[in-house]
Amino acid sequence: RTQVSGVGDGVLSAFRSICGEEGVSLGEAVREQHGKDESVHRCRPPDVVVFPRCVEEVSALAKVCHKHRLPIIPFGTGTGLEGGVGAVKGGVCFSLRNMEQVLDLHPEDFDVTVEPGVTRKALNAYLRDTGLWFPVDPGADASLCGMAATSASGTNAVRYGTMRENVMNLEVVLADGSIVHTAGKGRRPSLLSLLLSLVSLLRKTSAGYNLTNLFVGSEGTLGIITKTTLRLYGIPEAMVSAVCSFPSVQAAVDSTVQTLQAGVPIARIEFLDDVMIDACNRFSSLSYPVTPTLFLEFHGSEQSLQEQVKTAEDITQSNGGSDFQWARDTETRNRLWKARHDAWYAALALRPGCKAYSTDVCVPLSRLPQIIVETKEDLIENRLTGPIAGHVGDGNFHCLMVVDPNNPEEMHRVHLFTERLARRALAMDGTCTGEHGVGLGKRALLCEEMGPVGIQVMRSLKDTLDPNNLMNPGKILQREEP
Amino acid sequence: RTQVSGVGDGVLSAFRSICGEEGVSLGEAVREQHGKDESVHRCRPPDVVVFPRCVEEVSALAKVCHKHRLPIIPFGTGTGLEGGVGAVKGGVCFSLRNMEQVLDLHPEDFDVTVEPGVTRKALNAYLRDTGLWFPVDPGADASLCGMAATSASGTNAVRYGTMRENVMNLEVVLADGSIVHTAGKGRRPSLLSLLLSLVSLLRKTSAGYNLTNLFVGSEGTLGIITKTTLRLYGIPEAMVSAVCSFPSVQAAVDSTVQTLQAGVPIARIEFLDDVMIDACNRFSSLSYPVTPTLFLEFHGSEQSLQEQVKTAEDITQSNGGSDFQWARDTETRNRLWKARHDAWYAALALRPGCKAYSTDVCVPLSRLPQIIVETKEDLIENRLTGPIAGHVGDGNFHCLMVVDPNNPEEMHRVHLFTERLARRALAMDGTCTGEHGVGLGKRALLCEEMGPVGIQVMRSLKDTLDPNNLMNPGKILQREEP
Repeated sequence: RTQVSGVGDGVLSAFRSICGEEGVSLGEAVREQHGKDESVHRCRPPDVVVFPRCVEEVSALAKVCHKHRLPIIPFGTGTGLEGGVGAVKGGVCFSLRNMEQVLDLHPEDFDVTVEPGVTRKALNAYLRDTGLWFPVDPGADASLCGMAATSASGTNAVRYGTMRENVMNLEVVLADGSIVHTAGKGRRPSLLSLLLSLVSLLRKTSAGYNLTNLFVGSEGTLGIITKTTLRLYGIPEAMVSAVCSFPSVQAAVDSTVQTLQAGVPIARIEFLDDVMIDACNRFSSLSYPVTPTLFLEFHGSEQSLQEQVKTAEDITQSNGGSDFQWARDTETRNRLWKARHDAWYAALALRPGCKAYSTDVCVPLSRLPQIIVETKEDLIENRLTGPIAGHVGDGNFHCLMVVDPNNPEEMHRVHLFTERLARRALAMDGTCTGEHGVGLGKRALLCEEMGPVGIQVMRSLKDTLDPNNLMNPGKILQREEP
Repeated sequence: RTQVSGVGDGVLSAFRSICGEEGVSLGEAVREQHGKDESVHRCRPPDVVVFPRCVEEVSALAKVCHKHRLPIIPFGTGTGLEGGVGAVKGGVCFSLRNMEQVLDLHPEDFDVTVEPGVTRKALNAYLRDTGLWFPVDPGADASLCGMAATSASGTNAVRYGTMRENVMNLEVVLADGSIVHTAGKGRRPSLLSLLLSLVSLLRKTSAGYNLTNLFVGSEGTLGIITKTTLRLYGIPEAMVSAVCSFPSVQAAVDSTVQTLQAGVPIARIEFLDDVMIDACNRFSSLSYPVTPTLFLEFHGSEQSLQEQVKTAEDITQSNGGSDFQWARDTETRNRLWKARHDAWYAALALRPGCKAYSTDVCVPLSRLPQIIVETKEDLIENRLTGPIAGHVGDGNFHCLMVVDPNNPEEMHRVHLFTERLARRALAMDGTCTGEHGVGLGKRALLCEEMGPVGIQVMRSLKDTLDPNNLMNPGKILQREEP
């Protein structure tokens, strides 16, 4: 075995005594795999990867790391986009894939608790016969605890919310190895509304500080999430999807705003610009008109579906939209959404050999047409390939930048473009990231967004919970090396 | 002028130079008024009351307090129920009633920013001609910033959420007088869905730690909220209310659960037990049958209303409920909900000369019938007057304890009862407070709910943001005197 920097033989044998020979890996390939995500951020392998099997092992391993001042990098599926699993200071990657139990399903209260190895698809497969599902869907088959850590979102958020609204409790191992339950152990404090098709399932309590939402979105920098209690939803009685083409970005976005303002409880409303729909057509063998396009999905009772669709169609047509192209049966609907979820690969296919980087900003809805139009102009002016797709129902959109990683000049242009895009969003009262998180890529922009006092408050929270800066160091907050 | 303990002449003149002669009050009556809430917690007057007119004055006053180590007690309307405004260690009450501007209304993005003197009724009066409203309604005409501080909720939460889901940004003056914007200055990061009648209006961002939700519910112990940016909703096209009587608690609660499970996006569903409905009948000159009762309200389009009502009626009748007694026009609806909101006074009227104390717990919905039945038995066994009313749609209910404050033996029995009730909720995976907060009254119960590590994390957050324990000391967390 190779000796690795910072992690001595004593530490390794302590690790092995906790999670077994097979629970500790030094192999080059394993380390590589656990140091890179699917983005352009370069791989930063950890010194060692450990594979704990339960929270007690996570806690014991964390205590060893704490004693020896070794960085800890929690790892779910590595599907994040902002470099969140890179081991920028080396250290120990905690791969949580062997903790894959679904625990404590309470169908009558619409909640379930999962370990960090459980992905969203695995949970929904587990739930198949219960009539329930977990709708938050960022595209990738991410681990649910990882989705909590990054405050993930996705195409269903307009109706079902993001992870922030769907996490009821977390079990977290802190930097010193102690175990905390953010809403108290075993608590599932009530759901606000439940429902087959609905609505705002909220965790209701006013007991003390909201620790759950402090850890949701903390990106592994405050602790390791080892369990998450989630709210579930009833599978809607009926679902139908449709595609609608528009003469302009403005027409598509206006339709979105008006549909929401009309109170249509739309489940998904996704915008694809002309470049994106062209890429999707090529990649997924589709033949939609190459113009700004909305993918829509409606959930509800048969009767409410009729009312929703009628209102939405009236609105899109008054904005010059095409007739709806329907996807009613499950297979056609799945094909439609697969095409949307494959947008990443469709964008990549535009320039073989290149890498993709998905930026992500979010603005108040009324500013959306302006920012998309300006951003498209910016892309053209700077000769960049960046098809646009977005969860426009909540003002959030992505540019899927396709870039040649061997062309530093182009990489630099992309970098400047994404900074301009984020600053454009900030200038419109928006945020530099709607769902991807800060990670490595957006730490400087977070400072601009929050201002110095806000950053100072965040830093003081980090210092309090992780005084030695061991938890996923270097992410979210920039800090001088000690 | 009287010299007061801890607040010397130098401090007073510093205060006067900041907010003027009239902005500083030492009068006995004023101090009394600012040291008591509407509950049984005894009045703890502050040494002095200041009336700042803007955030700069709040900041300057806080700096003086910080320098002289004087406790700060933020004061909105004093309508809280857990002793949150009592000056348990003396100090300076910051009455924020003179900061009463409604700022930055963005009707197109459904958001508004308010200063802490603006109450929910004042905001809704301001919005009257816009077609928008702010639905969170805890009963009292509380200040909106105070509602954010206590994470208030109320009868509409089942559809519109609590303050946690409706606060998008906060301006907060910290213990050292610095000013922080929890989501960055001026940011209104997107709404998830907007809508006339809907649904889950969520703040979407994954930029750094969620500071907003750290301050929502912090009850003045982490800082003084000087502005809150709220999401607004379109006034529904149609609203209708109804009353339905049931043969048993179980039948009423089962109807609630089934109505929610059927996906009816009900706006309010309030339970009143037989004792409560009897009290309301007497107080508000009504004549409802004296049995477990639901007050319901539906919001939506005319067509969706029909569907909602039909489903709800089918369900209540299958559970042995009476025919709906309708309140269709605004006046009748308002009379109905006034009767519900007057439950407090109706309970008080059961025993003239007594005081009321409203307890508040929350459990997973499936446990609600059991806890209510057990609680009623407990009340009878212990000869206590405690009509029950609750936001049953989210598993949250109150016992309005009516108690003779001059009878220490009865006060003690009430105290033991409320502890048993909270522990009963905790044993059912619930929480010791759904919406009233911890304040003074529930600090010991919070420890049981959270466990020692959770409390330690909360305490470390408090120590970080308020190292000298000046911000509303003694609330939420119990602590040894320094």
